[in-house]
Formats: sequence, C-alpha cells, structure tokens
Amino acid sequence: MRLTLLGTGNAAGIPRYGCPCEHCHAARHVTGLQRGPCSAVLELGAQRYLIDAGRTDLAERFPAGTLSGIFLTHFHADHVQGLLHLRWGTGQHLPVYTPPDSEGCADLYKHPGILDFHPLRKFETFRLGDLRITPLPLIHSKPTFGYLFEHTTTRIAYLTDTRGLPPKTLQWLQGHKPKLLVVDTSYPPGTGHGQHNDLDETLALHRNLESPRTVLTHIGHDLNAWLVDHAHTLPPGVHPGGDGDLVFPYCDST
Amino acid sequence: MRLTLLGTGNAAGIPRYGCPCEHCHAARHVTGLQRGPCSAVLELGAQRYLIDAGRTDLAERFPAGTLSGIFLTHFHADHVQGLLHLRWGTGQHLPVYTPPDSEGCADLYKHPGILDFHPLRKFETFRLGDLRITPLPLIHSKPTFGYLFEHTTTRIAYLTDTRGLPPKTLQWLQGHKPKLLVVDTSYPPGTGHGQHNDLDETLALHRNLESPRTVLTHIGHDLNAWLVDHAHTLPPGVHPGGDGDLVFPYCDST
Repeated sequence: MRLTLLGTGNAAGIPRYGCPCEHCHAARHVTGLQRGPCSAVLELGAQRYLIDAGRTDLAERFPAGTLSGIFLTHFHADHVQGLLHLRWGTGQHLPVYTPPDSEGCADLYKHPGILDFHPLRKFETFRLGDLRITPLPLIHSKPTFGYLFEHTTTRIAYLTDTRGLPPKTLQWLQGHKPKLLVVDTSYPPGTGHGQHNDLDETLALHRNLESPRTVLTHIGHDLNAWLVDHAHTLPPGVHPGGDGDLVFPYCDST
Repeated sequence: MRLTLLGTGNAAGIPRYGCPCEHCHAARHVTGLQRGPCSAVLELGAQRYLIDAGRTDLAERFPAGTLSGIFLTHFHADHVQGLLHLRWGTGQHLPVYTPPDSEGCADLYKHPGILDFHPLRKFETFRLGDLRITPLPLIHSKPTFGYLFEHTTTRIAYLTDTRGLPPKTLQWLQGHKPKLLVVDTSYPPGTGHGQHNDLDETLALHRNLESPRTVLTHIGHDLNAWLVDHAHTLPPGVHPGGDGDLVFPYCDST
C-alpha cells in the first residue's frame, strides 16, 4: 500500500481567506506552505482510491479511468465539495463508499450523475481486490467513518474527522494495530473544542495504540502556526502531514 | 459599468469529465477553450460585484477586500459551490444578495461564516452606490433571479438560469430595454428541454426585446460543439460568451 496526502487542512485551509498573519501571507506565495481540504490517495498495485473529495481540482488530478473509487469519511462540504462538479462527467461510473447518512450534501443524492454511492456498515470488513477495508465509526457532528485499510499483514488507519474515538473503535484498533495512524489534529495542545482533536488528544491516541508512526492531518490555522515553532518537540514517530506527502511506506529511522 | 464573464459553461463545464470528444480533448490542453461555472464580474467605479459563485478559485481571484458583494441567481451547486470554502475566511463580512430560497445549498445558511445573506424581493429596485439593481424572477427548478443592472441610462440584464421568461419579467424588460442581454443558452437550436433555453429560445428573446447585443452563456456540451461550426451563422449582435470575455462596454461595429 502507498498513501499520499492530498490535503492536510481544515475547511478554512491555509492560507485562510482574508487572514493577514505571516503564515497565511507566506502561504499565498509558496505552494508548499498551503494546506488544502483534508484528503488522500491510497494505492495498491493498479488500484487507486481517493479518500475524501474536498479538493475542487479532482477532474484535472484524476482523469477519467484513473480512480478505482472514493471513500468518504463524511458529508461535510470540505470533504465532498469536489464531487459537486465531478458527478456531471460521462462514461464509467465511480463507486463512492460512504457512511450511512440520509442527508448527504446538497443535491448529490438527487443528482448523482456518474457517482454510485455505496453506504457501508460499521465494523463490516469487505474486500476490493487485495485490499481489506473496515469502516470504523468516529465521533463527529455527522455520521463519520474512519477506515482501516489492510493488505497482507500491513494496516493503515485513516481517522478524520473526529474528536476522540468511540470505545469499540479504539478496541478494534487495539486488536488490529496499524503501522500508520493518520489522525484529525485540528488544534494546538490544550485548546481542544468542538468536534476535532487537539494535539494532546492525538498524542494520547498515539501512545494508547503504541503507534510506530502517527501523521497529523486536518490541521487548523492555529496549529499550523504552532507547528512552525514546535514541530521539533513532537515525540518520535509523530509527524505533521503536508499536502503531497507520501506517508506510507515510510522509513523507520525518521 | 463593465461586465466580464468569468465562466460560461453549465454544471458539467468544458471539458466534460471523461468525455473523449475532440472539443473536450482540445479543451484539456487549451485554457481558452474551457468553460467554467457560469459567473461574471460587474464593476462600476470602485464597486466590484461577483455574479454567482460557482468558481472554486474565488479566494485566489478575489483577495479579501476586493469584492463589494455577490449576487446569486440561485442556489444550485454550480452557482454557489465556491462559497463553501470562501465563507471560512476571516475579517470583513461579504454581502451576498439572493433570491428568497429557504433551502439554500448544503449548510451555507447554518454556517455562513463571513457571508451576510440578503434575500431580495422580486421587482424591488434598490441601490448600491450609483448602481441600481432590480431582481427579475426567472423560470427554473429553484427560486431564481435574473438581475437588471442600471447606471444613469445604461442597462445590462443578466438572465440565467432560465427557460423562457415569466410574462412580468418580459414586460419589465420591454419597459426598461437593456443595452446588453446575457442569457442562459444551454442547448443547440431545436433541442430545448428541462430548465434551460436552447438557442432558438434565446434568439426569440433577442428579437422580442430588440436587443442591440445578446451574449450566450451557460453553454452546454452540445451547444459548445455546435458553435464551433455555426457561430458565424448567428444573427448580428448575438455572440457566444467566453470565459474571461469583457462583454460590456462593447464596440457597436462588431
């Protein structure tokens, strides 16, 4: 399996529209400092899956026929807004695996176009080729799934958006320890609120699961600024994700 | 007044995702052949208004402080999807003038962020500085307004999305003849269906209003292909719009 992060920001992203801070200012001029809508690409042999579809340049990034399907964590706009345009394509239909959410987003269900929505059931592992996928319920303001991706004995857990984990999800992960955790970490340490982890909460999960590698994603404006000064203080094995980063496989020495 | 088209396509746009036709193929390589979400910019002195917000690059195109407000024709995704991100900005709020639509799109009303929604009333002319605006009801599957923009004795009518016009809107325009009509023209002649004009229907309106200049917008895939071979057969004063075109003021001789 290969996992590449496409976006590591929250809904506002970096730069945040209208923000005069030095970090947003710099990000308007340096692509590498930007954080787009939280999303990733998982590849296994010829299979290629998008995880969340908040980027609005999907048609350019993934020409028709280059995606095997899409996993949605949930139907908040910053995770699905790229589908509002992509659906109007022509030709082959695209499977979209989702949590069960009767509302969806905007009129996606009413006019799905080329999208074939497949609602999944929590904890029911299924296969796509050589890939095994288990939807893991998270804690968020809409029905939300993290995903445990498995190939042979290797496991990757992608866990966003969430604040903490439901006991059964934690238990599942303790019984199926991942080699990589990618975790919603929106806020600086000690500032957790609402529906997203702060760094302390992510580090607790990292320790709890004895994770060899944990990558932060869904990074908000203030955590982005905090990381500029403090990323070097993160424990071994914990890394801020960046847009475009290949995060799996990784080199154990870093 | 200056009017520049930002996007002249329908929801699918040109190129259409996955379409192998020669026109979509060419448009993937030549920016000038592309048609983005139907939208425009109206400028009068220092005032600068966006008409519809379907483009998803609004943050880059219009840095904070460079827009006086936004007019929405309606809440279909291809006309508002750019707001799903823009709203999470910081600083000055942005007025968004809309038809009365209790649904809106996705969670824009629930989480408006920096957007200040102002529902308008049909046929009630109001002023913004030196600009007079009259919301004109159109015929579409959601509550939809066209807009008549006036400055001194000059009038521009922006009429999309619609199929035909309600009698009272037609009557209003007959009493307030515009120098420019920008009109939803989605389909080739004789192929009208659903909620959008075909070219015949737009030409009938052009004649009915004795319009000195009519510009086609919201151009669908098949009309785009038709225009490649037939644009030269359009009557005098009728022009296909293109993304980025300055359509007002215009030179009378063309």
